[in-house]
Amino acid sequence: MSVSTQATIASFGGKLLKLAHNSSTLGCEMKFNLYMPPQATNNKLHKVPLFIWLSGLTCTADNCSEKGFFQHGASKKGIAVLYPDTSPRGIGIKGEDDAYDFGTGAGFYVDATASPWSDNYKMYSYITEELPKTVFSEFDQIDSSRVSISGHSMGGHGALSLYLKNPGKYRSVSAFAPIANPLKAPWGEKAFKGYFGEENWQKNGAEHDSTELLKQWKGGDLDILIDVGTGDNFYKQNQLLPENFIAAAKEIGQEKGVNVRFQPDYDHSYFTMASFSDDHIDHASKYLFA
Amino acid sequence: MSVSTQATIASFGGKLLKLAHNSSTLGCEMKFNLYMPPQATNNKLHKVPLFIWLSGLTCTADNCSEKGFFQHGASKKGIAVLYPDTSPRGIGIKGEDDAYDFGTGAGFYVDATASPWSDNYKMYSYITEELPKTVFSEFDQIDSSRVSISGHSMGGHGALSLYLKNPGKYRSVSAFAPIANPLKAPWGEKAFKGYFGEENWQKNGAEHDSTELLKQWKGGDLDILIDVGTGDNFYKQNQLLPENFIAAAKEIGQEKGVNVRFQPDYDHSYFTMASFSDDHIDHASKYLFA
Repeated sequence: MSVSTQATIASFGGKLLKLAHNSSTLGCEMKFNLYMPPQATNNKLHKVPLFIWLSGLTCTADNCSEKGFFQHGASKKGIAVLYPDTSPRGIGIKGEDDAYDFGTGAGFYVDATASPWSDNYKMYSYITEELPKTVFSEFDQIDSSRVSISGHSMGGHGALSLYLKNPGKYRSVSAFAPIANPLKAPWGEKAFKGYFGEENWQKNGAEHDSTELLKQWKGGDLDILIDVGTGDNFYKQNQLLPENFIAAAKEIGQEKGVNVRFQPDYDHSYFTMASFSDDHIDHASKYLFA
Repeated sequence: MSVSTQATIASFGGKLLKLAHNSSTLGCEMKFNLYMPPQATNNKLHKVPLFIWLSGLTCTADNCSEKGFFQHGASKKGIAVLYPDTSPRGIGIKGEDDAYDFGTGAGFYVDATASPWSDNYKMYSYITEELPKTVFSEFDQIDSSRVSISGHSMGGHGALSLYLKNPGKYRSVSAFAPIANPLKAPWGEKAFKGYFGEENWQKNGAEHDSTELLKQWKGGDLDILIDVGTGDNFYKQNQLLPENFIAAAKEIGQEKGVNVRFQPDYDHSYFTMASFSDDHIDHASKYLFA
């Protein structure tokens, strides 16, 4: 579980730590970033909560750390931010680097069941188990009982599906431009077919599809914040399908618990996240400091 | 003077415009970015002021647009932000792409007098004359009478020297990690020798060296904000020399007018600019809305 520190960067009064560890789940070295706000001290009576950010296709831990501006809000509120990578790296599986939307940089936050991916492509277990355990073990300034989750695009799918699959594990969830119904979207179909195999992709995929999971939701009242830009080309190409997620919320009587804000003209880029990151930190804060 | 729009990106309630024009001063196509805050409308009685941001070595117009977070403050205050490029591009002079600190991406905000650079490397004239004229001509939502200037590293040198050389042209100036005394710094010596020639570099360089210009300052009371990180490796390597600038301010009795904040642990990166960009927008606002 040992973590090495590759850089310590001052940011908004706190420190952005560039870290690496050997992941036993994924079978490779994994880099990740952790923002420690100025409120994180060695006083064990005043630990800080954690906001986990799941990035989208092609991203590493760095993109959102540099362009998302979550440190701005997290610094004010006193929240640590964890930026994981988006897939195992350098495994050496044939074809893993062939496409931007499958393999390297495209782990889709599932545990693959199909060969040759099933030995290493286990981002679901890595994000829900190994990585947070590693972080809580190494950084006892962070309160393991107060964790929220959010993400963008593929990472928005990850945030919503991890939240809906694990009632009580996360205090809140939000997303930017999530792939909200991957079973019905080209990106999701390709990833699920690859990681679960042609025979099982719909059955296994349903267990990671946020719209399908929402239909089965047995937890309490929801309060999910989602931002989608109307200028987002992937929204226009039906990769995101937030309307299906909204329809599922209505189907289960949770329409008041799913707040999808269609932001006029905003696109799929980090400019959108930067513009609204404070809102998502505020949303998480309501639950992390409740 | 015609400007083409290559992209329009929603950002903090306004629009970041990616623009290009053919520069007659530099003899090449130049890209630049312009952030129009939400307050910029066609109401000619309520024009918005302009904050010019000069970037550092190797940067284009994009780096600070993506990572500097100036749109956050500019959006709240109602200020347009102009992000120019840092040198002519693609001129084809032998050696222009050989080093990160001379030639392409390293125009140093001077007009070169030595061959073969003197035909195109005229960033001083471009930034003080052609580019703002082009912007004011194309975007009449911007008030040409209210302009502030700021920048980072080489661009901090640019902001300070343009301000000190042109009393009254800019309402205010600030800088991050400026090369404050280029005549005494390796970066400055290399650039001035290249652009002015071995014989004239000290004499011509003195006309663009902020510490030398400050000693000659005949304007009124100064109010210059400068942030320098104590973890900045280029500060440690004596490329920036803010102490010399402070000493010059004392020499002319303007020590109260030069506020150099040494920010503990902060480095030379955009993480530092993002952390304090609001302060620099606030500083400019005092004068842009006076």
